[in-house]
Amino acid sequence: MSFAAASAVEPAGEGRFTAEVQPGWDIAGKANGGYLIAIAARAASVACERPDPVSVTAHFMSPAEPGPVSIDTEVLKVGRRFATVRATVRDGERPLLALLGSYAGLDSQAGAPAERVDASPPDLPPPERCVKAEPTETWPPPFMGRVDLRLHPDDALLDGRPSGEPRVRGWFRFPDDEALDTLGLLVAVDAFPPTVFNAALPITWTPTLELTSHVRARPQPGWLRCAFTTRFITGGFLEEDGEVWDASGRLVAQSRQLALLGRG
Amino acid sequence: MSFAAASAVEPAGEGRFTAEVQPGWDIAGKANGGYLIAIAARAASVACERPDPVSVTAHFMSPAEPGPVSIDTEVLKVGRRFATVRATVRDGERPLLALLGSYAGLDSQAGAPAERVDASPPDLPPPERCVKAEPTETWPPPFMGRVDLRLHPDDALLDGRPSGEPRVRGWFRFPDDEALDTLGLLVAVDAFPPTVFNAALPITWTPTLELTSHVRARPQPGWLRCAFTTRFITGGFLEEDGEVWDASGRLVAQSRQLALLGRG
Repeated sequence: MSFAAASAVEPAGEGRFTAEVQPGWDIAGKANGGYLIAIAARAASVACERPDPVSVTAHFMSPAEPGPVSIDTEVLKVGRRFATVRATVRDGERPLLALLGSYAGLDSQAGAPAERVDASPPDLPPPERCVKAEPTETWPPPFMGRVDLRLHPDDALLDGRPSGEPRVRGWFRFPDDEALDTLGLLVAVDAFPPTVFNAALPITWTPTLELTSHVRARPQPGWLRCAFTTRFITGGFLEEDGEVWDASGRLVAQSRQLALLGRG
Repeated sequence: MSFAAASAVEPAGEGRFTAEVQPGWDIAGKANGGYLIAIAARAASVACERPDPVSVTAHFMSPAEPGPVSIDTEVLKVGRRFATVRATVRDGERPLLALLGSYAGLDSQAGAPAERVDASPPDLPPPERCVKAEPTETWPPPFMGRVDLRLHPDDALLDGRPSGEPRVRGWFRFPDDEALDTLGLLVAVDAFPPTVFNAALPITWTPTLELTSHVRARPQPGWLRCAFTTRFITGGFLEEDGEVWDASGRLVAQSRQLALLGRG
């Protein structure tokens, strides 16, 4: 099932939408965070009638399991250029995710010149020389079968060995040549293994509390180059900063998430 | 008037609060963004009965002028450790700001060791050798009289000359020895002149669309060291990343805002 179909939302009146969290988009039975954000972000986009999530923040309250969810949206303001929307994903009465975003149509921005770009896309071996996470019965998680993700060999925890640097770089696309729009970018920024797994620290899980994505432009067709880094692991928290570059070499998204350190 | 008094909120029943946007906290007649966030964040904190805004995102819809505002809060979830809250600041019917945050009590985290810190506080001349923005009748904005802000001389646009680097570093505290809590950090991250004014580009204003702050720890008493940088000015947008360090040399907050390029 394509990303577009798996993240489809159905209007149910008065700002409410329904959706189905699909099996196969999970990690150990819990829906991937970026996938759940995309469902909420799609509902919010439909509600405000603007295609592109320029800035979207999600707070995670409970993990989602496959099955029906509702999304209540509220359009707070529709301006000339931006619309401000919030959304809440619920599984019955239980809130799973809260979203707040500003939406626009980014087409008109595509031609704006880059005034300053202080970094380049990550230097990656070609996709066929990177490490593809192919799902088997036990590993990696089923979600890895829904996206085509190729990890830089240095960051791929080959033989279980961390690089020592909390960094993960790689290629991303949807399988079967599915086009990737700005909602797909919200999946790309949360699809890679946590940077902290490369930090050589006794950290075995790292639940996300909050994730913010900024979308700068609609991506050109083709592979995305992605890089994620962590600079501060303090006070029981860590940030993970992401950059996503499209096939034309343009920065199309930035992300930052705040995650917790899990041990044990 | 102290920050605590200027950002006070009054419960008005059913999750609603009232507050007064005070004169003197403005820039050209519009309330400083971080100050408006602090009002909303304080209401949200009271609503969920947790003191510290661990992650707070605000989207700006309209500038606030001095006068009464209402803040409608909704507590989405109260968990063992985190509470998820949203808030909307309105001036009559007009929405000014939407906030979504996760709150906790950070005291218990204070002792957690820093596992990895990949940067240091910015290297600054002592406060008395930095540039203090003292409000006069015309410049700088009245807001600069409410906070004690000392800019690194290299970043202070002395004689109107930009450094060429979109970076601003400096010291921050409240005047009159007012203690600065985690809500005060939300002001610190939006108190400095925009980084982009140092970029030597024809940009004269840069309205903030969205600002997210992560608060890692309660600050120790004393000056805060702050650093703000911009790496990508593209497609009509720029991000501004902030780091705030307390007097003990600990990272207490990170921030990122998405702003628009204004010309003319």
